[in-house]
Amino acid sequence: MRRVEQMKLRKGMSVSQLVKQMNATGVLGAGKIGEAAELASEMFNDPDYTVFLTLAGPIVPAGFRRVIVDLIENECVNVLVTTGANMVHDMVEALGYRHMVGTFAAEDRSLRKENIGRIGDIYIEQEAFQGLEKWLFKTVEAIPEEKRRRISAAEFLSEIGKRIKDKESILAIATHKNVPIICPAFIDSIAGFQLWVFGQDKTLRIDPLLDTQVIMDKVYEAKKVGVIMLGGGVPKHFALFANTFREGVDAAVQITMDRPEPGGLSGASLEEAISWGKVKPKGRAVTVICDVTIAFPLIVAAALENHWKKVNR
Amino acid sequence: MRRVEQMKLRKGMSVSQLVKQMNATGVLGAGKIGEAAELASEMFNDPDYTVFLTLAGPIVPAGFRRVIVDLIENECVNVLVTTGANMVHDMVEALGYRHMVGTFAAEDRSLRKENIGRIGDIYIEQEAFQGLEKWLFKTVEAIPEEKRRRISAAEFLSEIGKRIKDKESILAIATHKNVPIICPAFIDSIAGFQLWVFGQDKTLRIDPLLDTQVIMDKVYEAKKVGVIMLGGGVPKHFALFANTFREGVDAAVQITMDRPEPGGLSGASLEEAISWGKVKPKGRAVTVICDVTIAFPLIVAAALENHWKKVNR
Amino acid sequence: MRRVEQMKLRKGMSVSQLVKQMNATGVLGAGKIGEAAELASEMFNDPDYTVFLTLAGPIVPAGFRRVIVDLIENECVNVLVTTGANMVHDMVEALGYRHMVGTFAAEDRSLRKENIGRIGDIYIEQEAFQGLEKWLFKTVEAIPEEKRRRISAAEFLSEIGKRIKDKESILAIATHKNVPIICPAFIDSIAGFQLWVFGQDKTLRIDPLLDTQVIMDKVYEAKKVGVIMLGGGVPKHFALFANTFREGVDAAVQITMDRPEPGGLSGASLEEAISWGKVKPKGRAVTVICDVTIAFPLIVAAALENHWKKVNR
Amino acid sequence: MRRVEQMKLRKGMSVSQLVKQMNATGVLGAGKIGEAAELASEMFNDPDYTVFLTLAGPIVPAGFRRVIVDLIENECVNVLVTTGANMVHDMVEALGYRHMVGTFAAEDRSLRKENIGRIGDIYIEQEAFQGLEKWLFKTVEAIPEEKRRRISAAEFLSEIGKRIKDKESILAIATHKNVPIICPAFIDSIAGFQLWVFGQDKTLRIDPLLDTQVIMDKVYEAKKVGVIMLGGGVPKHFALFANTFREGVDAAVQITMDRPEPGGLSGASLEEAISWGKVKPKGRAVTVICDVTIAFPLIVAAALENHWKKVNR
Repeated sequence: MRRVEQMKLRKGMSVSQLVKQMNATGVLGAGKIGEAAELASEMFNDPDYTVFLTLAGPIVPAGFRRVIVDLIENECVNVLVTTGANMVHDMVEALGYRHMVGTFAAEDRSLRKENIGRIGDIYIEQEAFQGLEKWLFKTVEAIPEEKRRRISAAEFLSEIGKRIKDKESILAIATHKNVPIICPAFIDSIAGFQLWVFGQDKTLRIDPLLDTQVIMDKVYEAKKVGVIMLGGGVPKHFALFANTFREGVDAAVQITMDRPEPGGLSGASLEEAISWGKVKPKGRAVTVICDVTIAFPLIVAAALENHWKKVNR
Repeated sequence: MRRVEQMKLRKGMSVSQLVKQMNATGVLGAGKIGEAAELASEMFNDPDYTVFLTLAGPIVPAGFRRVIVDLIENECVNVLVTTGANMVHDMVEALGYRHMVGTFAAEDRSLRKENIGRIGDIYIEQEAFQGLEKWLFKTVEAIPEEKRRRISAAEFLSEIGKRIKDKESILAIATHKNVPIICPAFIDSIAGFQLWVFGQDKTLRIDPLLDTQVIMDKVYEAKKVGVIMLGGGVPKHFALFANTFREGVDAAVQITMDRPEPGGLSGASLEEAISWGKVKPKGRAVTVICDVTIAFPLIVAAALENHWKKVNR
Repeated sequence: MRRVEQMKLRKGMSVSQLVKQMNATGVLGAGKIGEAAELASEMFNDPDYTVFLTLAGPIVPAGFRRVIVDLIENECVNVLVTTGANMVHDMVEALGYRHMVGTFAAEDRSLRKENIGRIGDIYIEQEAFQGLEKWLFKTVEAIPEEKRRRISAAEFLSEIGKRIKDKESILAIATHKNVPIICPAFIDSIAGFQLWVFGQDKTLRIDPLLDTQVIMDKVYEAKKVGVIMLGGGVPKHFALFANTFREGVDAAVQITMDRPEPGGLSGASLEEAISWGKVKPKGRAVTVICDVTIAFPLIVAAALENHWKKVNR
Repeated sequence: MRRVEQMKLRKGMSVSQLVKQMNATGVLGAGKIGEAAELASEMFNDPDYTVFLTLAGPIVPAGFRRVIVDLIENECVNVLVTTGANMVHDMVEALGYRHMVGTFAAEDRSLRKENIGRIGDIYIEQEAFQGLEKWLFKTVEAIPEEKRRRISAAEFLSEIGKRIKDKESILAIATHKNVPIICPAFIDSIAGFQLWVFGQDKTLRIDPLLDTQVIMDKVYEAKKVGVIMLGGGVPKHFALFANTFREGVDAAVQITMDRPEPGGLSGASLEEAISWGKVKPKGRAVTVICDVTIAFPLIVAAALENHWKKVNR
């Protein structure tokens, strides 16, 4: 057994130094941050790893778009598994709309009148989604109809990504870097409903079983698999379950505020995942019980220390 | 302002009497249970309501299969929006496999060796999913190939439902009662991955935009909409967002243990939903912060008092 | 291993029938409610048990005053360990002031102006505490000065209890039934601060080490100890730690919404308590993760079935 | 309304730069960290502020002893309000015993046999408390009996502090710097129970109303009051309620993982505190929903940037 080292904060200390101290305490939330940073660093550093990053919750609206982009550009992340919403908000930012700082204590009836949608304490004008629809329809029409007869959500999103010029767009960079964007429930997003409207008189058939094929190809070709899960939901489950076909992932980090006791997958422990073959019995897994917007930048900034090359581009 | 009435527990008191007392306190969790029961009772009683029930988390594994079936049979629920997993576990129970009482403090490496999957403190043998695969392949082959060329998940599930004889099966009863089973992310379930295998050499194309059509038809034809949400996830979002096309639902009850602060949709308040037009500004909405397995039977048993007819069939 | 029994809700079913079904599912929150009810019932039924009930959080303001009174009157509870606040609110109700139903979404600056204090969604007029001060000063002066020179909080509260006529007062009934009211941090309450004012020119010396004596006497004389903990805080710790002197309690039920991961005592598991000798290695312990106002009446109403005699007085 | 600035992580970035970026996003947990750091920095910088730091949960066991010591030495903190446990663990560390890195998934029955107490994933040998008792009895006997006839917990702890040589002891440094250690429920700690044993045949009368006097003196002499609350419990309530006598604190930061919905004080919002006059209507208050061991070092390290002088001593 090792000691809990007492922390010592210093002026000008780097994030990486702080995280090392957290790791040295080794206990509670700080210990988990330290352990997660170490494990993420290993995933980023070892070229044998195929790294899956899963996104649930308002990752893009909360200001983590560029962080994801940098992770993809630096080849730290090889597969993205995401809610539709995060891709919607990536497009919306690409179109020049911005998320605004609001408050949880909002007058939602007033926001409704002002056409502002609220996500926690983040505001966005509904106008953004009207702009999105117009742009999306035009963009989808530019995809050859032949392709649109049967397309995976991943390929569909990569067709979109090709047509985005914004260099800080996740869709654009992921497409550019050949990182598949797996979005098993894309239709459950604002864009998904817009595509339903589009499909009333235009051709568009998304075949999600093709998305299973896309993720399975990545699973089968991987030497080692690491997965970093921001929140739970479909992205967590889809990424983990796909990996049961190779007896589980080798390394896993999840950041969540959900509890395990009610039994939902989002709050489920990574120990439980072992029983299903989602995580290898000898795999390493860390659960950080924390707001993603606090834990994720800490972990990534600490991992940066050894691995990022193009980050100051 | 009204007083917080002090509770008085009595021997042999009925659930409905207890819930009435909770309503009379009017505060904290008990107050919310009281309010939710009242609102659910209104939804069940007023024939103008189209009631959407959304399922996330282990509703079927935890023992609520019959409760859902009774709600459907008594025409209290008109649309089901669910995770794939709950339908998988419904099929598995229909095939005669059973969920077992386990423990959160499990040795997951041992469970793995014994081929037992764990969901919180619920165990299930992996054998069940092998049995499911065999049965599912046979059952899907019985669906005319013509239909399989392009099918919504809802229609697919109703084809499955037709072929289940178990009278306590949600799929069977929902199909029988013409209650659509909307499952926007069905591919993200064990059955979904099995269908991917099936699709390697057999015809099966699920078109989820057809599911959007199924839910939208229900939304457009409704006079009033009530939604009861067990957990969050895709089912919560899909049900609520579909209803933005009619300016929001009239009544909403959600039961969740997720917190609002991290900004995820699952933990989001129903006030926030007003800003998006998911809940009408004059709609009534109650959030119960509670384990679904505790709150839901309380609310339903209280609502039973006035509305169920066939419940002792 | 036993099966998860599927629930079946029936018209007019009693709370006790519902809780039995929850026990039959055996899993997640419902399973814990069932197990807790069984264990509480055993504590209430077996005369060898000395039962400690600990109160933290707004138990009295939320409407559970009479429930506690009935438990004491029926000799189900033998020792009360409580925050000062709950006793303050018991006095305030005895003086005829009432708690009101408010809202979490309050304008707290307006409430401040209107002299209303908020506890979650419970309101109370500050006037109540002015009334309390007047009455408290008069009442304390009626305690012989000799006693006031060195008094435990428990004896002090029993002197108060003797002077309350309200038959629904916890202080009054506990005093009448010789149930000690252990309140280790009584000074940390509104009344505590009022007593500080009182002590500026009158005699009053509370000696909390005498309270340790009071609880230790109960610990040493007990054949078996059961403890039911509503919330955590000082009451939970004081009751459990006192019992380390007899190698731990035999049975424990805790109801809390706090999480274990941050390491605080309030959210700590009862497994952890075993390592400290707070719970016997062979003791039975159940943690219910639930709002107390929902779980506690369910558990008590179910336990009522077999054990209460005077409840319809 | 301002934009949510997208974060940009850089190699070698300092904690303070990261926290500034969190502040620039302005939303969710990261936004709260940014805001809290700014407010803490203001409290530390403005000599008009009397700063109260409240400690609940395993702050010392988790490795934050030196951080607290540095805050006191740098005169950033002027009053400490704490659980007894944190002072017990400070003494235990001063005696040379160490906390160890364990696991939440412990075999608590085995730990019991090995005489190891568990706090979350922190272990400590029971031997430490036997050592403490011996030392404590000797140390208390060294306090003149005259003083022991009636002593506040604060003065008692400062008598202890005088007799500790360890320069990393909170008790020692606080005593040295005249920072009162307010511990309203000191008897509810291992040392408290040891003092009860001591008191069986030696003189010791702790008078907690004297502690109220100690905190009230600080409240009355303050120009401005800032309070930083790590966890809730008695320390949070005592610090805030004392400040109702001056119409509330001017600035408040709380870090907690407790929820507001169950109505307990620990999870209560600081808006609610306004209704009680605990926080001034024009006061600034930030609640960070986070594990203290993650949020607190981030906030302090960021605040370090401008204010600490002796930190590299």
